[in-house]
Amino acid sequence: MELPSKLLDTAVNEFARLPGVGRKTALRYVLHLLRSENATATGLAQSIVRMKEHIKFCKECYNVSDAEICGICNNTNRDKKIICVVQDVRDVMAIENTGLFKGVYHVLGGLISPMEGIGPADLFIDALILRAANDVDEVILALSGTTEGDTTSFYLARKLQGLNVEISTLARGVPVGDELEYTDEITLGRSLQNRVPYNK
Amino acid sequence: MELPSKLLDTAVNEFARLPGVGRKTALRYVLHLLRSENATATGLAQSIVRMKEHIKFCKECYNVSDAEICGICNNTNRDKKIICVVQDVRDVMAIENTGLFKGVYHVLGGLISPMEGIGPADLFIDALILRAANDVDEVILALSGTTEGDTTSFYLARKLQGLNVEISTLARGVPVGDELEYTDEITLGRSLQNRVPYNK
Repeated sequence: MELPSKLLDTAVNEFARLPGVGRKTALRYVLHLLRSENATATGLAQSIVRMKEHIKFCKECYNVSDAEICGICNNTNRDKKIICVVQDVRDVMAIENTGLFKGVYHVLGGLISPMEGIGPADLFIDALILRAANDVDEVILALSGTTEGDTTSFYLARKLQGLNVEISTLARGVPVGDELEYTDEITLGRSLQNRVPYNK
Repeated sequence: MELPSKLLDTAVNEFARLPGVGRKTALRYVLHLLRSENATATGLAQSIVRMKEHIKFCKECYNVSDAEICGICNNTNRDKKIICVVQDVRDVMAIENTGLFKGVYHVLGGLISPMEGIGPADLFIDALILRAANDVDEVILALSGTTEGDTTSFYLARKLQGLNVEISTLARGVPVGDELEYTDEITLGRSLQNRVPYNK
């Protein structure tokens, strides 16, 4: 696919670096920007530069933040003795949306993945161990139920073992509102093995 | 979905203006840029600004170009008496890839679409009529086989009628290499009605 303009080609290549974006999709984005008003294109470009320059990561939990300490860590109503370990800011948002967690978070910034060359040193794991050693009751490992998530949970649990903290993880089981018939065998099997007393 | 940072939120909103991009996909792009090196993010931002500032549209055919006149219009080997009318630069690239067209193009910049509020005045139609009136033998209407494409072809054909040019359009029919069984009824019906002499 040879483009008639080098500037167009450069822009397409830059957009094609985004995750899940190929050259066809990138060209669609670029032609859209080319057709739209100047303010739309410069607005996008400026927001990227500003975000990259000014966004901070909270010094306590490493969540994305506009200030040195994020809104959650700064909130005196949150219980700092319970730390919920998550992969990234999307998981913080998902858990916040449940409205059921009143502790604080620790954002790892990814999961251990030998396939992608991400090792423990690339994540904020040392900072978590430091926090956990300092007057914390419980660490909840709230990572994805994938191989990478399980590997990371296993690694963290071993690292946290010597410390005087309770280590817990999310319950796995049949999703609320789902029919048994359509639940996959592994989930159904595990939720049968880990059955809980009926108390309601 | 409330984001923990205003800068992040602004960037997500800007990305979500791209065609086919919702807030979830936009957040994925933004988090990728946030995690990647500074050069990746500024490279994208700069390429957008540069493209928007410096890309020109060829003064003859209105194709995207780095110069006042594009490479195709500037090529003395191309037959300027045959004009192929297309929707945008992607169609120019598609036809160029066949290697079978030696004339020049005219890029409309879109199709007539009352649903999207695009009328004839929003496209480079007047420029086409002016070109066609000036020593041109044939105008090929190479637009999509959609309602918008057909409407635009119909409008252009009527506008070009008074001029001394031949008006042609792309042959519609069973794609080369396709099995009859899987060809849709309308295409198959039309290719039966418009059957051509077997001359090979």
